[in-house]
Amino acid sequence: MDIATLREAHPDHWMRAAAIRTLTLDAVAAANSGHSGMPMGMADVATVLFSKHLKFDAAAPLWADRDRFILSAGHGSMLIYSLLYLTGYEQVTLEQIKNFRQWGARTAGHPENTHLDGVEVTTGPLGQGISNSVGFAIAEEHLRARFGKKLQDHHTYVIAGDGCLMEGVSQEAIALAGRQKLGKLVVFWDHNSITIDGAVDISDRTDQPMRFKAAGWHVQEIDGHDPVAIDEAIEAAKKSSKPSMIACKTHIAIGSPAQDTSKGHGAITAADAIASTKDAYGWTSPAFEIPADIKSWWEEVGAKGRKERVEWEARLEEQSAQRQAEFARTFAGEAPKKLSSVIRALKKQVSEGQPKVATRKSSEMVLEVVNPVLPETIGGSADLTGSNNTLTADLGTFDIENRKGRYVYYGIREHGMAAAMNGMALHGGVRPYGGTFFCFTDYARPAMRLSALMEQPVVYVMTHDSIGLGEDGPTHQPVEHLAICRATPNTLTFRPCDTVETAEAWEIALTQSGTPSVMALSRQNLPTLRTEHKTKNLVSMGAYVLAEAEGKRQAILIATGSEVEIAMKARDILQADGIGTRVVSMPSMELFAEQDDAYRRRILPPGPVRVAVEAGVRAGGWDRWLLGERGREAKQAFVGMSGFGASAPASELYEQFGITAENVAAQAKALIG
Amino acid sequence: MDIATLREAHPDHWMRAAAIRTLTLDAVAAANSGHSGMPMGMADVATVLFSKHLKFDAAAPLWADRDRFILSAGHGSMLIYSLLYLTGYEQVTLEQIKNFRQWGARTAGHPENTHLDGVEVTTGPLGQGISNSVGFAIAEEHLRARFGKKLQDHHTYVIAGDGCLMEGVSQEAIALAGRQKLGKLVVFWDHNSITIDGAVDISDRTDQPMRFKAAGWHVQEIDGHDPVAIDEAIEAAKKSSKPSMIACKTHIAIGSPAQDTSKGHGAITAADAIASTKDAYGWTSPAFEIPADIKSWWEEVGAKGRKERVEWEARLEEQSAQRQAEFARTFAGEAPKKLSSVIRALKKQVSEGQPKVATRKSSEMVLEVVNPVLPETIGGSADLTGSNNTLTADLGTFDIENRKGRYVYYGIREHGMAAAMNGMALHGGVRPYGGTFFCFTDYARPAMRLSALMEQPVVYVMTHDSIGLGEDGPTHQPVEHLAICRATPNTLTFRPCDTVETAEAWEIALTQSGTPSVMALSRQNLPTLRTEHKTKNLVSMGAYVLAEAEGKRQAILIATGSEVEIAMKARDILQADGIGTRVVSMPSMELFAEQDDAYRRRILPPGPVRVAVEAGVRAGGWDRWLLGERGREAKQAFVGMSGFGASAPASELYEQFGITAENVAAQAKALIG
Repeated sequence: MDIATLREAHPDHWMRAAAIRTLTLDAVAAANSGHSGMPMGMADVATVLFSKHLKFDAAAPLWADRDRFILSAGHGSMLIYSLLYLTGYEQVTLEQIKNFRQWGARTAGHPENTHLDGVEVTTGPLGQGISNSVGFAIAEEHLRARFGKKLQDHHTYVIAGDGCLMEGVSQEAIALAGRQKLGKLVVFWDHNSITIDGAVDISDRTDQPMRFKAAGWHVQEIDGHDPVAIDEAIEAAKKSSKPSMIACKTHIAIGSPAQDTSKGHGAITAADAIASTKDAYGWTSPAFEIPADIKSWWEEVGAKGRKERVEWEARLEEQSAQRQAEFARTFAGEAPKKLSSVIRALKKQVSEGQPKVATRKSSEMVLEVVNPVLPETIGGSADLTGSNNTLTADLGTFDIENRKGRYVYYGIREHGMAAAMNGMALHGGVRPYGGTFFCFTDYARPAMRLSALMEQPVVYVMTHDSIGLGEDGPTHQPVEHLAICRATPNTLTFRPCDTVETAEAWEIALTQSGTPSVMALSRQNLPTLRTEHKTKNLVSMGAYVLAEAEGKRQAILIATGSEVEIAMKARDILQADGIGTRVVSMPSMELFAEQDDAYRRRILPPGPVRVAVEAGVRAGGWDRWLLGERGREAKQAFVGMSGFGASAPASELYEQFGITAENVAAQAKALIG
Repeated sequence: MDIATLREAHPDHWMRAAAIRTLTLDAVAAANSGHSGMPMGMADVATVLFSKHLKFDAAAPLWADRDRFILSAGHGSMLIYSLLYLTGYEQVTLEQIKNFRQWGARTAGHPENTHLDGVEVTTGPLGQGISNSVGFAIAEEHLRARFGKKLQDHHTYVIAGDGCLMEGVSQEAIALAGRQKLGKLVVFWDHNSITIDGAVDISDRTDQPMRFKAAGWHVQEIDGHDPVAIDEAIEAAKKSSKPSMIACKTHIAIGSPAQDTSKGHGAITAADAIASTKDAYGWTSPAFEIPADIKSWWEEVGAKGRKERVEWEARLEEQSAQRQAEFARTFAGEAPKKLSSVIRALKKQVSEGQPKVATRKSSEMVLEVVNPVLPETIGGSADLTGSNNTLTADLGTFDIENRKGRYVYYGIREHGMAAAMNGMALHGGVRPYGGTFFCFTDYARPAMRLSALMEQPVVYVMTHDSIGLGEDGPTHQPVEHLAICRATPNTLTFRPCDTVETAEAWEIALTQSGTPSVMALSRQNLPTLRTEHKTKNLVSMGAYVLAEAEGKRQAILIATGSEVEIAMKARDILQADGIGTRVVSMPSMELFAEQDDAYRRRILPPGPVRVAVEAGVRAGGWDRWLLGERGREAKQAFVGMSGFGASAPASELYEQFGITAENVAAQAKALIG
């Protein structure tokens, strides 16, 4: 259909959708940057979705049972900003639209969840939004089972582009969604046949409908500019028990001189192009102005969910006080009071019993006491359940027939798992953790970065955290991954040395509200080193004195995780030689860096030589603690890895790479001279 | 079919395949670790492939026109070690088999290309091998077009498991292979319905044949234990003009008590289980012993390609001397002599002309002169060609109808691109480079790490390398990515400050034989700072004095990339105040770290205060150069990022985050006191 036909067929719809298109044109022109074509192409779908289907109330953007709308094709951010402005979200004023992409504006270049209610997810890195949506849908299914349909019963809608579908993570996501029959998930594919480099055809000829069908999806193909077809397709999608994909054939940058071209994907800023486009739309208002009748129609759309929201609130109030409080607590992401007591009890028990276990096993011991008192946890693993020790007895398997289950078998999909966990955390009401080998942080990286940027307290259970993994060799042995996690802003990296520290690390992770945590856990058994029970959470200081020097303090050994045992043994050697040696356990560099100077100085005073030991690369942050913080270049050494690992039994590797108590002691002695 | 029927139907085949199975059992038992089930399940496919189809000569493992065999399911490493041992590869002695997974053995836990000829690719991280294979097939198609069928005409065979197919990168790979109609690529899917966590069904119900068909593949489904069916399927696959997927229904750990269970996926080590399995096979030889008739049959298999290889060598010798030399040079990965002269000429030209361009544009200027003299380069981009500046005029597009083309439109597939580039580099005869935004290093990470581990000189063209990207905001602004690249072993990270440094960095990258390079390039324009032409490649020193202090040297400013301009302006401010200030440009920390102490001391002498400036996090390696190398804690400062960026014009962001000449100068002054 050409524009004239479209306008004629549905004149009211046309002008309402044109409001999105013209706001996009105006905002992108004002910013002189951005992406015009996608919001223009998908305005019809968005108009029908928001006006006829999406359950929301612009006055209550955080209503727990709203439908979620995720713009996976985040570069088309003006689509969502236009919708939020038109429907009357308080935060999105016309001023914000005019300040699109400017410093301090809520209307960032790509939508950021931390900037705006109504933006459910930070998108832009392609493939993430559609993969987050699987987590949203899992959370909704689970919470519906937990709290009942009266409190939780909504859809998750996604707009995804060709970029999202080409990214591999989308395959992980759609396969998981298909396997789990997430019937309340609806994905619109903006099938505009254009990418930045030109026609999609130059890089892709995938039969996307067939691909989605192969993953178990309900698939429809429609004209993405036909409001009737869009409406009918959404109706059908809602009826299907499978996740739905609606392939919407659209014209990118419709009506502009750049229509159906890769130029239209980017910023249309030329005044004459904008003028001719508005002409084609029959749009006569000045820039940024929406005719009153159109604006008020949109505001009604923004208010139409009010009744339903009020009814929902009434239903919530009908629940028992306890249930209301529990619903509020879980959606607020607050840990229950019992958490600290079960952690404390476990710490006491293990500091007395002193088990010699791998910290991955320690983590399981923690989860065994935590999961029963935190019903909001949803665990899982990327097909390494028995290795990551992420499954506890009480969880049950989340499955089509058991939505109450709290354990997700993610399959061999580290990236999809991480993205789904982000979606769950963003949805609210659940607290996800998931496991894989620490080395496969690499696979999950794009989503892990977004956990940090989106301020979501996802917990990554990363086991087999060094050459201690042994025979599987360098492809599976992280050496630079502590450096990667520690260099990432707003991320807590924990490498506990025993069960007590593991419990403390979990306590911190589970009480975060805006920061993800990475648990780097050993494959190999480690002794309990925290043998004296202390109520205080010492890991919260980041580093502390695990063993004080006897006699004159000549050396400080600093270590993390599995190497704290080595440091303690090195201390024995040094003390036997009369060298007073302090051992500092440093389970979290980030938290130690946050302590005040006085505390840091108490732990790392000037004077003694310093030797750090960690089975990773020195670039993992060690220069600061060895050379800085009152350290001296001539009086410090690092014992760790300087390259990739190798395939052999773990004990052999530690010997071969010189990460031994003997070497640590020798280094300290050499520095003392 | 049960084992008895299989044995009876093809008794000779059965025993030959059993040799693989029993070697696997014996080696895994000796190592007390490893994965028995996969080699046992796929032994029939491997036996038919190697004996009837694979073009190879065990005596010449590096023959340039051999068929490539890639074990994407790398945990089944004993499959390939058994095959190499049985067919008589010199490096794989029985001793090596007995030392499986031990220190110093070539037979590492997962196959490592650096350990063994015959192992084309290091595999283990799932999804990589199948994605590498696309690069192998592209290289073969291109080299066939370039050198003719007489010299290059071979297949690429892959064994992939469920894990490989679940990993998202496999979707990127199969879609790219389908788009490019890589007809000489054949993938065997080990369809054993088992993963570590249990039945595949618990995490995946994808219709894999339909999924591959949707990507444009030729698909067959067979019984993976039936040698006749296997043979016929390979014949049909070879005839198809599309890439082929053969779904091989197999029994993991066939014949063992752990058959068809996830236990069978891991190490079968119990003596009685091994004994009963061998019984079921009708295998009576002692551990590690292969009956002479079976071993000699396998050795004939290993020698059957000899004739073809000798004929190929004769064909090579028929070529002109120049062509032979060129073939040898490109497969040896040697840069042509002309490279240094075109780089030198460009350096001279730009140091005189002093263009003010973004370093991504500088990179294009380099490629414009390099690509014509390096016919082995194959460029590409993950759908950001115009932004990455990776396409030069002479390349032509690699496509179904133009295999001579040297530019690949990878689509929005950073990970698939990186993995394909690894495959190309491993294949030999081509030198791949590919572009995306530096922030999307995250997506390519698993493959980038493998470039380093596999010692492949892939070049990653990473543009938009900081907040200088501007309005697209923090999802697209790298801050920790320099840290990530620099922390990765065997990786050269370059951040050049102008066109001259960019040319020098490229020269280094293109002459590497065993190290990948990352080019971190600016979006924004930068002045030419190297205005005095020098023949010497200064980037090769890693860091050097760009501007010396006038008067008493009181401050050293250290910077990289786009911030060198800021350091130079700060120097102007400081010199105007009479503070002698040196500016050190540090385009490669890795190369600087490799210099001897005397050189490093010359560049970073003790005494002056030091201020580093880089629009990334300090964890990117700065502590060493500020606190270490004769630095002093009280006399150093870092100007850069401490968290994520934001969406706004680049100049505004630099102001807001304080990465300015004024701030750098102020910091230096404060330190001088």
